[in-house]
Amino acid sequence: MDLYERVIELSRRRGFLHPSFEIYGGLGGFYDWGPRGARLLENVLDLWRQLYVVEEGLMEVSTPTIMPRRVFEASGHLEGFVDPMVDCEGCGRSFRADHLVDNHVDLVADSLSNEELQEVIDGEELGCPECGGPLSEVYDFNLMFGTTVGPGRGQEAYMRPETAQGIFVAYPRLYRYARERLPFGAVQVGRAYRNEVSPRQGVIRLREFTQAEVELFVDPEEKVHDGFDRVSHRKLNLLSSGKQLDGEAAERRSLREAVDEGDLQNTLFAYHLHVVDRFLTALGIPEGDLRYRQHLPDERAHYAADCWDAEVNLDRFGWVEVVGLADRTDYDLSRHSGHSGRDMSALRPLDEARESTVRRVEVDMSSLGPRLREDASPVVERLNERAAAGEVDGGDVSVEVEGSTRVVRGEEYEVVEEVERVRGETFTPHVIEPSYGVDRAVYAMLEKAFRSEEVEERERRVVSLPRALAPVPVAVLPLTDDAEMRHVSSEVARRLRGNGFVVEVDTSGNIGRRYRRQDEIGTPLVVTVDQVTVDPESEGHRTVTLRSRDSMEQVRVGLEEVEASVLRFVQDGADLAEIGE
Amino acid sequence: MDLYERVIELSRRRGFLHPSFEIYGGLGGFYDWGPRGARLLENVLDLWRQLYVVEEGLMEVSTPTIMPRRVFEASGHLEGFVDPMVDCEGCGRSFRADHLVDNHVDLVADSLSNEELQEVIDGEELGCPECGGPLSEVYDFNLMFGTTVGPGRGQEAYMRPETAQGIFVAYPRLYRYARERLPFGAVQVGRAYRNEVSPRQGVIRLREFTQAEVELFVDPEEKVHDGFDRVSHRKLNLLSSGKQLDGEAAERRSLREAVDEGDLQNTLFAYHLHVVDRFLTALGIPEGDLRYRQHLPDERAHYAADCWDAEVNLDRFGWVEVVGLADRTDYDLSRHSGHSGRDMSALRPLDEARESTVRRVEVDMSSLGPRLREDASPVVERLNERAAAGEVDGGDVSVEVEGSTRVVRGEEYEVVEEVERVRGETFTPHVIEPSYGVDRAVYAMLEKAFRSEEVEERERRVVSLPRALAPVPVAVLPLTDDAEMRHVSSEVARRLRGNGFVVEVDTSGNIGRRYRRQDEIGTPLVVTVDQVTVDPESEGHRTVTLRSRDSMEQVRVGLEEVEASVLRFVQDGADLAEIGE
Repeated sequence: MDLYERVIELSRRRGFLHPSFEIYGGLGGFYDWGPRGARLLENVLDLWRQLYVVEEGLMEVSTPTIMPRRVFEASGHLEGFVDPMVDCEGCGRSFRADHLVDNHVDLVADSLSNEELQEVIDGEELGCPECGGPLSEVYDFNLMFGTTVGPGRGQEAYMRPETAQGIFVAYPRLYRYARERLPFGAVQVGRAYRNEVSPRQGVIRLREFTQAEVELFVDPEEKVHDGFDRVSHRKLNLLSSGKQLDGEAAERRSLREAVDEGDLQNTLFAYHLHVVDRFLTALGIPEGDLRYRQHLPDERAHYAADCWDAEVNLDRFGWVEVVGLADRTDYDLSRHSGHSGRDMSALRPLDEARESTVRRVEVDMSSLGPRLREDASPVVERLNERAAAGEVDGGDVSVEVEGSTRVVRGEEYEVVEEVERVRGETFTPHVIEPSYGVDRAVYAMLEKAFRSEEVEERERRVVSLPRALAPVPVAVLPLTDDAEMRHVSSEVARRLRGNGFVVEVDTSGNIGRRYRRQDEIGTPLVVTVDQVTVDPESEGHRTVTLRSRDSMEQVRVGLEEVEASVLRFVQDGADLAEIGE
Repeated sequence: MDLYERVIELSRRRGFLHPSFEIYGGLGGFYDWGPRGARLLENVLDLWRQLYVVEEGLMEVSTPTIMPRRVFEASGHLEGFVDPMVDCEGCGRSFRADHLVDNHVDLVADSLSNEELQEVIDGEELGCPECGGPLSEVYDFNLMFGTTVGPGRGQEAYMRPETAQGIFVAYPRLYRYARERLPFGAVQVGRAYRNEVSPRQGVIRLREFTQAEVELFVDPEEKVHDGFDRVSHRKLNLLSSGKQLDGEAAERRSLREAVDEGDLQNTLFAYHLHVVDRFLTALGIPEGDLRYRQHLPDERAHYAADCWDAEVNLDRFGWVEVVGLADRTDYDLSRHSGHSGRDMSALRPLDEARESTVRRVEVDMSSLGPRLREDASPVVERLNERAAAGEVDGGDVSVEVEGSTRVVRGEEYEVVEEVERVRGETFTPHVIEPSYGVDRAVYAMLEKAFRSEEVEERERRVVSLPRALAPVPVAVLPLTDDAEMRHVSSEVARRLRGNGFVVEVDTSGNIGRRYRRQDEIGTPLVVTVDQVTVDPESEGHRTVTLRSRDSMEQVRVGLEEVEASVLRFVQDGADLAEIGE
């Protein structure tokens, strides 16, 4: 069993994660988050919201997963969100053409066009890998799940392939909620869908997954973040496209350095790499298993001007993208504006200080009008343009209009200067997008938290999740079957629940077995109620044992101090030695 | 404008809620939760999880929204989740047959069968309400959104019509996670889908909505809750089916009384009505606008033995179901077990005290075997059955086997008694299900929180949401444009965000306008940074103003006490007068 299998085996057994619809034989690309996994995912999303919604002050929205066809005509997904496919004309099965080619030829098949794939298939005389039958031509298969809204022919619609589109189509409202000031940002957490042809990587490539996306709407002339100076000293493992092309590895560098040397285009992008890094390290991903890799020019999505992936080094799959940070430019808003006919712009307000002097001409139309007739108006327009540019001085001027040259005489016009208050200029905002694959992030957490060690000639498996994110922060175990121990355990649990802690009261099996169970669930702290707790002689000195998952240390604390102790241990990260004796 | 329109108007303007895909003309039955609405929804779900996951200790899971066809063959949705429809043969439009009949005849059309609807349509000679054209026969339209998983013909699948099915199909694993002990419960929060023919009630009837469902798996012989005594004195407005048939209104009664008099079938059901009530009143729904109505026998879903709806009295729509509490019996698990061939049972452990005496026979096969040959084995089986039932006494016995009578002689057998330890008996659990329509609950909150009052000859609109649930618990306003006030405001906001509060810093417009904005957002507390705060002379006595949304009182507190004051006001519900002066 490799590490992936071991983590998945434990995940199924302990309720983190298992294939969906098992009683019906499963369905590729669909997983359930079980009781521990779903809670872990919630805790991870709470942390994510603390960073983006609370601290960065971004707006969270929640929009439908079903979206009408027009959205994806505009976004480009109908045309571009496709995989190359072939069908077997014998058995009817379908295959990814690039995977087929990948398996037979030493080529990076996913950078080949359909035509190039077809050439390889023809050249190598590839047949169906299942039955050997002949293959169809390579064709595009759209990865969106389609459906129909309403009865009869209804309206064509699709399950969203990314949560981002729900934010883009709501831009005019969001801009108003932001009181028409840039920069602002909106986030969305929710399901997204991708009808993979043949999902082959378990929980790493799902057909239905949870995304958490951030869309930062910014003035393209101000891709800066005023908090950058606070974080510019932070070092990240950066792997620029240049380094990749030179065959080099990632290098640990400060954000300041990367911006100064031009690898990171601006401080906004750099600041948000820092937020991504803050999040991923808080999940417990070790620094050495984390790198930021810039997309190669031919790897970028059609809409992206620049893209860096946060990648985690996984045992089976190698470096896997968990977060993508992309500069989507004005692509999305421009496309939606074009397709909907709606204004998706923003106003760049100008300071009063930036009031500008405008030079224009005043023209004697009683002379120019009769003389130039229908050319008079375009001539004045050109004259104004040249005056604004400082190109006329009061003398005779020649102007081209529709191929013929017209002359305006010095006595027919006068250059005047006016101070104009320009409120602002409109432009289409650019979008910087940190996009999180939450399922992958949580799987990566589990893999990195998984420990296996020999203790007393037994394998001890521990899921050493960050304390504050663990699905069950604390368990309460009565040491034996004793009714009073059970009663006190329930009371302790009730008080902890009143403080918002998920608590497991585990009464089945011997104590060693129950500790092992909690180790595998990743419970950082176990409270054991024993003889000392319930001994009538202990009145006034009733204590319980606290056991740390990670150090296996045990200390005793007073029964009345349990809540405070759990708070200090789980939320503040205190050592057990500071808490009890 | 009725109250619904006024709430929706404010919701759009202030970012609670607006129709989806507005730039593309919208799509019926789809709404976006805007920045304030999505946050409100999150806060409501946090409260919900505190009740069910933390306090009741139920397991939360998160399963796919796309589910394969077999799930819905088993659940009955393919066959039964339908609306009666007619198409116009002229213009091609489709209509709900029951709505059509409703609009023309004084009948409760939704209780009519398709045949009965057809009779009315024929009898009244109803045509297309749009073009007058002839109508098709009444047919069933399935309300699930269909899709296809994978390429080619792929696999038929549907968007789940309820989150519950994801829990039912995972039952065998959940039972193991619960360490094979009943009762246990699982919950799921997520999107569900219903392809309404013609959604006509705005946000009350959506095609995509958020459900929060609880599935309690219980022994049908033990539909009890051991916490019932703690809550049995609680009074609820109960409207039993009997009362409805008698034309009476809801009556405020204690749960104890309702159980004793048989209106509520058991303490488990009663306890969970209490939890529903605790949740809805915490949202700010007034007692008088809340009732619990039992379904009439012909109103219940095919799977339900009993069902009570929690209904909220809304201004436009009248009494609207927000939560349904149903006894689904063993319907779902039995169906899924039958369709999947998998064991979906539970074991009812028996106490040692319930060891049972088993009577059986010991037979002299050396005599019986040669004599009865192939009938010997079935004869012994019958004999054992009759011995267990106490029907044999040691004399000759006649037994029927495949139509012929066989006699066992007294000397060929002996009745023996054995004490047998039966570990338990298997059975299919019953399911009690509280099912929440979260969008409706949040809309109901907004409507009930909406206040309009005349203040200084102006309409003052306030959304008086419960403090701890408000999307923006606190706003910070610098009184004027002053740079130092702005700086201090940012600092105050930063500190509050560090404590997990969503904070709005609002700098645009005069202070009265900004207070009005925060009133409409429902911000319970506003911190104003003014001249006193930034006056260098105030050193050591720098104070800010706190303003209460509800009372419009203002008090001053020290700059350093802001976080503690906000915590006390927002989370502990303290009065302003207790906090400052």
